[in-house]
Amino acid sequence: MSFLPLSEKIARLKNPSVIGLDPLPEYLPPEIAAKFSDAAEAIFEFNKGIIDAVADIAPAVKPQSAFYERLGVPGAALLKKTINYAAEAGLYVILDAKRGDIGSTAKAYADAYLGSDGYGKIDCLTVNGYLGSDGVLPFLDAAKANGKAIFMLVKTSNPSSGEFQDKLIGEKPLYRLVGEAAELWGADSVDKDGYSACGAVVGATYPAQLTELRTALPHTFFLIPGYGAQGGGAADVAPGFDKNGGGAVVNSSRGIMLAYKKRGGDFRDAARAAALEMKNDLVSVLR
Amino acid sequence: MSFLPLSEKIARLKNPSVIGLDPLPEYLPPEIAAKFSDAAEAIFEFNKGIIDAVADIAPAVKPQSAFYERLGVPGAALLKKTINYAAEAGLYVILDAKRGDIGSTAKAYADAYLGSDGYGKIDCLTVNGYLGSDGVLPFLDAAKANGKAIFMLVKTSNPSSGEFQDKLIGEKPLYRLVGEAAELWGADSVDKDGYSACGAVVGATYPAQLTELRTALPHTFFLIPGYGAQGGGAADVAPGFDKNGGGAVVNSSRGIMLAYKKRGGDFRDAARAAALEMKNDLVSVLR
Repeated sequence: MSFLPLSEKIARLKNPSVIGLDPLPEYLPPEIAAKFSDAAEAIFEFNKGIIDAVADIAPAVKPQSAFYERLGVPGAALLKKTINYAAEAGLYVILDAKRGDIGSTAKAYADAYLGSDGYGKIDCLTVNGYLGSDGVLPFLDAAKANGKAIFMLVKTSNPSSGEFQDKLIGEKPLYRLVGEAAELWGADSVDKDGYSACGAVVGATYPAQLTELRTALPHTFFLIPGYGAQGGGAADVAPGFDKNGGGAVVNSSRGIMLAYKKRGGDFRDAARAAALEMKNDLVSVLR
Repeated sequence: MSFLPLSEKIARLKNPSVIGLDPLPEYLPPEIAAKFSDAAEAIFEFNKGIIDAVADIAPAVKPQSAFYERLGVPGAALLKKTINYAAEAGLYVILDAKRGDIGSTAKAYADAYLGSDGYGKIDCLTVNGYLGSDGVLPFLDAAKANGKAIFMLVKTSNPSSGEFQDKLIGEKPLYRLVGEAAELWGADSVDKDGYSACGAVVGATYPAQLTELRTALPHTFFLIPGYGAQGGGAADVAPGFDKNGGGAVVNSSRGIMLAYKKRGGDFRDAARAAALEMKNDLVSVLR
């Protein structure tokens, strides 16, 4: 199945955005912080509010595992509850965990997130490919077997991403080689939307590389972080889409979760307004 | 503090080995599998037996997070219990989780594993540096602030590790650049054992690269996986040590945990005998 369920949701909602669920305690609206003494309970209430606010307008959510692991053991149950609440609401769930390991260890991670519902109903996982095919194929195999998908880190959105990723190997930068590996490894799983089960993370903050990679990797679905708080705008992400406006999804986390701080009012209303604004912003630049 | 606590334990026990705690349900001795219906309880019993069997002869253990995450939510509590049981037994605890992300997300992971006891008393974490300094320094800063340490993935032990890591950038392979970054980033934390808080993972399965990196990275402590089940022998790991026999620790997981399958008898006795055999094997080749 690859990314087809996501492509279909994006087409139906005319919205190629994913709402990041990266909660920190300091992000909590005062009314929630005041109501719960337990951090995990408070964050679940916050996440539910954000999910409810965007479920009929956005195709996907992306919980960032670090913000749940940060809570220690109770974070694991919170992550699962959040994932299942989002899945019940009809959202495509991308778990951003950037896992990567080899052999039986990669298989254990793949079992955890793509081969079972141990952490809830996850559709897609982010994966770090520094270890080569041994570190990616166990994830991709599990994804293919279960109608799911992965995003490999290719060109990340952070300021230092070029320190290794931009280094030239012959005439090509490392990120290009990693991207070509994603295109190759996914090749036997291209679905009717034109995309394989092996996607790539390419940051909005590097629009030239996004343009280059869109052309070089025609069957690789892109997850584009770096829009909004990290500085990328709609014009920056536009080159990540194909000629039909497909093949990519753009993430915003703080821009949605913290919208209430900028806009005032109820945090759910603010998140919905920010999500709609993002949708309109993205749609305005789609090819 | 960097790796000093580990260097001191290694010197005291004259044993540069770390026991991997990578439990799968099929590894369980029949007497434990029969006694517990709950997978997490059974694995904890197994882990306790292994820890008890090696605590006075080995300096360190390395739980592999994937094998705990694989159990879903109950795996998080199991991981914490295992870590704390090992720490109580006086072992240095390396959590092999290969985390890597950027900015506030890297900081959240660092808080989870190096800045709090949310997952128990961890001394050291493995980190994936593909994202560059933004993805590593938040971990290293937390390690330095809390007397802990990290191991960055440099040259991994798996067959496909060369697909990206061996690619030449100018005249140097990528793993060498990543290794030099570890040496540089750790430079301000070199302790009286001569090593910084920023170590490196270098596989036993690539002895030529291990030799090269030991010389090139004189202040970088090495975690050497790939001994035993993955095919590396004592002669292969010997070049990873400095002239005093320090600066490295060699991991064995299945070779210890599954020793009872080869040797028969009680799994604890078999694990202890295998751990002693590994110690003697390593000591025999130390410079």
